[in-house]
Amino acid sequence: MGDDGALLRPDAGLDLAVTTDMLVEGRHFLSGAEPRALGHKALAVNLSDLAAMGATPRWATLALALPAIEPPWLEAFSAGLFALAERFHVDLVGGDTTRGAARTISITAIGEVPPGLALERAGARPGDDVWVSGELGGAALGLARPQIAEAAKRLHLPEPRVELGERLRRLAHSAIDVSDGLAGDLAHILERSHVGATLEYARIPKCAAFEKLNDPELEKSCVLSGGDDYELVFTAPGAHRGELESLARELGLPLTRIGGIHGGDTRLTVLDGNGKPIAHRGGFDHFAPP
Amino acid sequence: MGDDGALLRPDAGLDLAVTTDMLVEGRHFLSGAEPRALGHKALAVNLSDLAAMGATPRWATLALALPAIEPPWLEAFSAGLFALAERFHVDLVGGDTTRGAARTISITAIGEVPPGLALERAGARPGDDVWVSGELGGAALGLARPQIAEAAKRLHLPEPRVELGERLRRLAHSAIDVSDGLAGDLAHILERSHVGATLEYARIPKCAAFEKLNDPELEKSCVLSGGDDYELVFTAPGAHRGELESLARELGLPLTRIGGIHGGDTRLTVLDGNGKPIAHRGGFDHFAPP
Repeated sequence: MGDDGALLRPDAGLDLAVTTDMLVEGRHFLSGAEPRALGHKALAVNLSDLAAMGATPRWATLALALPAIEPPWLEAFSAGLFALAERFHVDLVGGDTTRGAARTISITAIGEVPPGLALERAGARPGDDVWVSGELGGAALGLARPQIAEAAKRLHLPEPRVELGERLRRLAHSAIDVSDGLAGDLAHILERSHVGATLEYARIPKCAAFEKLNDPELEKSCVLSGGDDYELVFTAPGAHRGELESLARELGLPLTRIGGIHGGDTRLTVLDGNGKPIAHRGGFDHFAPP
Repeated sequence: MGDDGALLRPDAGLDLAVTTDMLVEGRHFLSGAEPRALGHKALAVNLSDLAAMGATPRWATLALALPAIEPPWLEAFSAGLFALAERFHVDLVGGDTTRGAARTISITAIGEVPPGLALERAGARPGDDVWVSGELGGAALGLARPQIAEAAKRLHLPEPRVELGERLRRLAHSAIDVSDGLAGDLAHILERSHVGATLEYARIPKCAAFEKLNDPELEKSCVLSGGDDYELVFTAPGAHRGELESLARELGLPLTRIGGIHGGDTRLTVLDGNGKPIAHRGGFDHFAPP
């Protein structure tokens, strides 16, 4: 920091993975959002993108527009961001702070991955299992029912699945993170891989808070189309089931088989308990009215 | 593009230089700004930062907030950005487009530089000459007098001094780009290098449009404190004068010796034709009222 930019020394022979995200007040977070959580989340979404590529995060840059200099806000935001950065040994290597009417956070994260081992969206093959980490729907539930603490935490303090992404390099054929909703994000894999998928709704791991709610429509909407969970959905050959189950135990992170990949059209079918397809909509539309 | 991020393969053994900038509508550009020029400038300011480090630009990411989907605006913006990217062989390797009330552009640029050869702000030494490329004050004049085409062009279509930055690696002790104004930017070199500088105002190359204006106060303000020129100001030992003069001829870009570095306090003194110090203020304050 302090020069016009920062100098990095990448490990020789590794590829770099780069991702960028912009969060805008009023769109991605409310003006009253807790700044420490916001600092965490702004970096977490980028680390999640790197995890979905199987990359080890190393560096990040931060550009910030703020309506005014607000030391307490900035200190809390930085504390949240740096706490997560330190956990994953990410160096903040550059920044730009400027004035703007709406708080706007733009982070670019850079990671490393051995050549040829990056996870891609285009790698799914017929016969692959479809897996998902953790539980889904919690973040969307936290938006719909902010009073449910467990769900609100999923929304505001997502955990990027960094170790999982690294370990999937040699196990998964394709991966993506659930940022816009399971249906929409898995659809990206299907389109890029020219394959279809069938999921069993009952097998999808769901945020435990849904059990008490007994609102199947809300649950379905949050689990299939809710964004911001930042779990990884990935496809892997059946031969890797045992290794993936061991990995789940080792990481203390549930990995659940929720369906399979097939050839043919790139449709995503989600079956209910009677084997009937469930209607679902795609993921978050960044240009839909707020 | 299309995956969660992009994969890059850096040249083995080179360091990476990374820089990031955010431009906000109403602050860094007007809402009526010509989008093609804006696309050019948004990338140019980042390439200028890399040039000031002596780095060769290679990749860039773009995050964009827009009030609505505006295909004509976006096409023109992209055309300006890509035209400059192609000239310098920069690959756009990632992007995020989202909705936000004010158009906001955040670019991160990544370049390469041989280890140990990056230009720094901290390298100026007593006895160094102070040099500047091109002419100063034009961009600030373009803001004050938008009807002067030559000056408006300097403001809206700055030329990043990429080749110059590369060639200065073995010639300059320190460098910075003039983004916030000569006095303020050179002050960063002085502070970081723990040296002082004395400049002769008459030697500073000025945008030709000032000659006809005959407004010495406006000229002084634009030349010493006006931002956005994106020339390089650098320091180099006297032994390199001949090489720098040859380089200027080779690049077709004037390089002018405007003063010298001395030990002692980190003050910047600008002398008028009678050897008397000229009062000057620092550069652009990103949090000053617009």
